[in-house]
Amino acid sequence: VKSKQPHVGTTIFTVMSKLATDMGALNLAQGFPSFNCSPELIDLVSFHLKKGHNQYAPMAGVPALKEAIAEKTADLYKVNYHPENEVTVVSGATEALYAAITAVVRPNDEVIVFEPAYDSYAPSVELNGGILVYITLKPPHYQIDWEVVKQKITPQTRLIMLNTPHNPTGKMLSMSDLNYLAEIVRDTNIFIISDEVYEHITFDGRPHISLMMHPTLQERTFICGSFGKTFHITGWKIGYCLAPKDLSVEFRKAHQWITFATSTPMQYALADFLKKPENYLAIPDFYQKKRDKFLSCIQSTRFTYTPAEGSFFQTVSYSGISEENDYDLAIRLTKEIGVASIPVSVFYHQKNDYKILRFCFAKDDGILEQAGERLRKI
Amino acid sequence: VKSKQPHVGTTIFTVMSKLATDMGALNLAQGFPSFNCSPELIDLVSFHLKKGHNQYAPMAGVPALKEAIAEKTADLYKVNYHPENEVTVVSGATEALYAAITAVVRPNDEVIVFEPAYDSYAPSVELNGGILVYITLKPPHYQIDWEVVKQKITPQTRLIMLNTPHNPTGKMLSMSDLNYLAEIVRDTNIFIISDEVYEHITFDGRPHISLMMHPTLQERTFICGSFGKTFHITGWKIGYCLAPKDLSVEFRKAHQWITFATSTPMQYALADFLKKPENYLAIPDFYQKKRDKFLSCIQSTRFTYTPAEGSFFQTVSYSGISEENDYDLAIRLTKEIGVASIPVSVFYHQKNDYKILRFCFAKDDGILEQAGERLRKI
Ligand SMILES: CSCCC(=O)C(=O)O
Ligand SMILES: CSCCC(=O)C(=O)O
Repeated sequence: VKSKQPHVGTTIFTVMSKLATDMGALNLAQGFPSFNCSPELIDLVSFHLKKGHNQYAPMAGVPALKEAIAEKTADLYKVNYHPENEVTVVSGATEALYAAITAVVRPNDEVIVFEPAYDSYAPSVELNGGILVYITLKPPHYQIDWEVVKQKITPQTRLIMLNTPHNPTGKMLSMSDLNYLAEIVRDTNIFIISDEVYEHITFDGRPHISLMMHPTLQERTFICGSFGKTFHITGWKIGYCLAPKDLSVEFRKAHQWITFATSTPMQYALADFLKKPENYLAIPDFYQKKRDKFLSCIQSTRFTYTPAEGSFFQTVSYSGISEENDYDLAIRLTKEIGVASIPVSVFYHQKNDYKILRFCFAKDDGILEQAGERLRKI
Repeated sequence: VKSKQPHVGTTIFTVMSKLATDMGALNLAQGFPSFNCSPELIDLVSFHLKKGHNQYAPMAGVPALKEAIAEKTADLYKVNYHPENEVTVVSGATEALYAAITAVVRPNDEVIVFEPAYDSYAPSVELNGGILVYITLKPPHYQIDWEVVKQKITPQTRLIMLNTPHNPTGKMLSMSDLNYLAEIVRDTNIFIISDEVYEHITFDGRPHISLMMHPTLQERTFICGSFGKTFHITGWKIGYCLAPKDLSVEFRKAHQWITFATSTPMQYALADFLKKPENYLAIPDFYQKKRDKFLSCIQSTRFTYTPAEGSFFQTVSYSGISEENDYDLAIRLTKEIGVASIPVSVFYHQKNDYKILRFCFAKDDGILEQAGERLRKI
């Protein structure tokens, strides 16, 4: 086989989760909760399975779920997406990203990606023939310099990929970021994909600023959302894409051939579950406690850090503690002290090592406490 | 938006299902059962949901399910696929097809597709930059002339797409077809995708001849399978791909970025369900009764037909009954007599109209009887 992706190996998440399991280590590496979802949500699935909701859903999603997503969006962000034409349910946010990229990127189109970047962005662009244009963000602030972005734009630029709250850094975009961006793309046909899967996981009262809240950006943006992250069901693989009608038409042309439709019983269950806004309104508080708990657990370690603004990840620096590269350290900590993390260099295409590890704190308090104790040994 | 797929509209399945619903017609158009899946399967899902199997499955699938698929395959076809390296669970056979195409088709590669063809093949090839080379099969026999196939092969040919049992015609490939094909591709690097989602739905004792049963074809073939078709759960969107290790490596590089993983609770439930071979061994008989029932129901209509060899579709000819084109007739029958079908012209890229309609007989007997009565009015 002459591979189209000769350099792609196994994702770091698979590698570290496997190592954690093999070593009996605490898995603070891969981003998934250690706790179960709401029993109510489980009962709803059982109900709809029995009711016979087991055949193909409509290609763009079960109407009740599309409506519930549109309502939640209108309530939270005061932006209206038409449920029939502008909301599409897909098989996880990974598919949402892949389908949006497939919808717009043609061979040799340039795509701007900010690093550190979630690991699916680059290969998804490459599999569609796009050319990656990287902009490197550095710790501790990972601040986007919009002048640099402006300079990177060429007539070939087709797409800019954003992610807020950000994985792995926990950073969030502000309205001032959006204003800069809007100014830069104003006279172009550039599309935007905004990965907002952690929209409900924000801290210290800081509101999520969605790309949809900026009227001139909204028109050109595919917003990718996830129920997996919000409702502790990463294994159900149900996500969605919000985009204006003309963009949604193109998005669906891709989705239609990639997976066609998404789990019918899960869609019905989520539609019912969303009818109670408290189910998602409770999430920021729930995760605030988790983040604060984790910060208190690592307070007496030698790591330095800025508290995450959002997402269920906390990055920490071990500068001045060890000279090891971050990959080796992550492996060693898993093996020797029994705590798995993700080395942030894997999110840079040239594996820049700023001596940062990422921990997922979507874990039971007991696990966070034990992790804190073990990490104190460093 | 400058569309990458300017000519793609809504799939015929969505169009006809919607029309059927709007008109209160019997929906024998879209291929899905009118009956529910086994209650045992539902209980298994509920069990695994409660057990907390709700976070990411491994990228290639839950080990127990991969093993169960490998065992079923070894039992039925005497071919061994290594569960760890050669079986991949994906979000439905549509994703299996899309990921396999993405894995091998590079821009300007030629892909041979036999028409009539399932509607996802052509756009999936085009979205990956491939060039379609069509071979047209005609009613009533839809026989492949392997001499024609040989002539269509060029140094640019990268992939041949096959489908057995065939949708929409119900035809099945024979070992002699496979021998011809093996001879033709012997000295080439051509890959094969074999869509075998109806593997368990075969009639009159005719065995399913899988591409994997031919040793020199097996080495170059991605087999796409579906639990949706087999267990009456088209809405769960769980399929799989069987391929030799080197091909599976490439397949997973695509799958990893397209959806990453597939529903965890459903995978655990299916793994348990497959432990009882009677659950799939009963399927041919079950559908034999459905096909025979449908044939008896349309016996006194004016349609002519050859009984389907496999799949849950029966095509019928209305040659000599009406001069209408098949699309108009399908619409009219839905509106006027209340039976929805699929016009087979939609499966040809130039919409060849041989005056054939396709009916799905995966429906309760009462529906099939009513459909027969209504169709007698023609
Ligand atoms: C798809 S597995 C990775 C989960 C995740 O989002 C992360 O750990 O960053
Ligand atoms: C994906 S909807 C179409 C279902 C099907 O396989 C068919 O009707 O041919």
